[in-house]
Amino acid sequence: MSAATASSAPTKTVDVAGTPFAYREVGTGEGVPLVLLHHVTAVLDDWDPAVVDGLAAERRVVLVDLRGVGRSGGTTPDTFEAMADDTVAFLDALGLGEVDLLGYSLGGIVAQVVAQQYPDRVRRMILAATAPAGAEGPAATGATLQAAVQKATEQGKHPKHFLFFEPSPAGQAAADAFLARLDERTADDRDTPISDQAVGAQLTALTAWEQNTSPAGLAAVKQPVLVVNGDHDAMWPTETGTLRLAQLLPHTKLAVYPDSGHGGIFQYHEVFVRQALDFLRD
Amino acid sequence: MSAATASSAPTKTVDVAGTPFAYREVGTGEGVPLVLLHHVTAVLDDWDPAVVDGLAAERRVVLVDLRGVGRSGGTTPDTFEAMADDTVAFLDALGLGEVDLLGYSLGGIVAQVVAQQYPDRVRRMILAATAPAGAEGPAATGATLQAAVQKATEQGKHPKHFLFFEPSPAGQAAADAFLARLDERTADDRDTPISDQAVGAQLTALTAWEQNTSPAGLAAVKQPVLVVNGDHDAMWPTETGTLRLAQLLPHTKLAVYPDSGHGGIFQYHEVFVRQALDFLRD
Repeated sequence: MSAATASSAPTKTVDVAGTPFAYREVGTGEGVPLVLLHHVTAVLDDWDPAVVDGLAAERRVVLVDLRGVGRSGGTTPDTFEAMADDTVAFLDALGLGEVDLLGYSLGGIVAQVVAQQYPDRVRRMILAATAPAGAEGPAATGATLQAAVQKATEQGKHPKHFLFFEPSPAGQAAADAFLARLDERTADDRDTPISDQAVGAQLTALTAWEQNTSPAGLAAVKQPVLVVNGDHDAMWPTETGTLRLAQLLPHTKLAVYPDSGHGGIFQYHEVFVRQALDFLRD
Repeated sequence: MSAATASSAPTKTVDVAGTPFAYREVGTGEGVPLVLLHHVTAVLDDWDPAVVDGLAAERRVVLVDLRGVGRSGGTTPDTFEAMADDTVAFLDALGLGEVDLLGYSLGGIVAQVVAQQYPDRVRRMILAATAPAGAEGPAATGATLQAAVQKATEQGKHPKHFLFFEPSPAGQAAADAFLARLDERTADDRDTPISDQAVGAQLTALTAWEQNTSPAGLAAVKQPVLVVNGDHDAMWPTETGTLRLAQLLPHTKLAVYPDSGHGGIFQYHEVFVRQALDFLRD
């Protein structure tokens, strides 16, 4: 339990079978903890403080770097099955039994696999800006990232302007606001940037997710799931990712935000926090 | 122009080629007027004051009873082509050239046809809880209404509890709040309830919309369109209605609200008003 905010919470480590995993805790809620799983290339500093603090108003929120990511030790595995194992090993190390999961993008895939491999550990899930197995997008993530970095360099912007937000004035203003929030951290223990090894392993896992994995197991997911995204996701298309995911899962609520993309939950952070808390509170 | 609110605006009439059409105006915005087109069985009193007043904060908002509906004269036609003609004849009578349209449910179909028959009269459209031609739902509207009335009678509730809102606690609380807002009207000139003739004609038009009409013309709609609904529409299913409409129209933004149905824009009226004004303001 912690009275810290997303920007002031210290980075802690916990021993997971001999490997230190970095994590932060925000919020003092007494209910089932809410564990946040990050996107490709992300470390703890990439979580939007507006979302984390908004959720922490009612929940104990736990952010984690999985194996090999940021300040966590070890080597990032290149399968989602192994990332799901690591997620549950981390829960064990913290003494957390049943949790809620918020999986964003790649983290949303990890959450899908946790729910299938360890159904007893998940009470509810929020799957944001993510895609079911076999959907278009994940296998092209490496190329999409490279193109965005090149465009960003040419225009003197951050790649997330293009990856996460619409080119509209509202979208680009939301990108500026989001990036400014990421700079709010006052604690001096910023996370370590992700390594090339970790990104490479994540991209390998994403390629297999699109090309060699079946979404059939989603039909057995008994948990209620909030599926959420912007309406024009430039990384993993909303139609084949978000909307299809909502169709494949048996118990879903769907939220789609207009004029927004992969970062829709950050652009509409106030709406998202309200809808997420409503969903988790039921 | 009017400083009235939705609940205090007087009901006026304008002569449309010899037939009086009832309408109300709210808001003093200087921009393109926003014309609201109503759902099956609805009269002017059925518009949510929270939505009307929210939109009127920035826009001149015009509500209309089409031919034969509520206090308007004449006989309701049984085709959407004729309802679209009537809509434009009403705009002519008020001296309105280009307008924005908010079409809700049946009104969203009228708006789709206006945009195709009179493309020069429409700047932007918001299509809420509606469906493209050929989609499942509209032809069953009569049966759906009857079943809801029976269920409502048995449970001592208003049919809109079942037609517009989810059975969840949040959905039913939203229904209560919505119905209470409809009772806020202080002006003593409440509209006349809809006639059996008008409802019958509307249901005939809806059946033809599902069974004998093609959505192909939507591909030529050049206007930006905000397509919006709740995620579980019990009347015209969200997937085959809202999501399909967003796919068929070339220039769309999509908004979907969780744990809500046909009345999603009323349940999430604050979010909807903000998103609608953002969309219209661009």
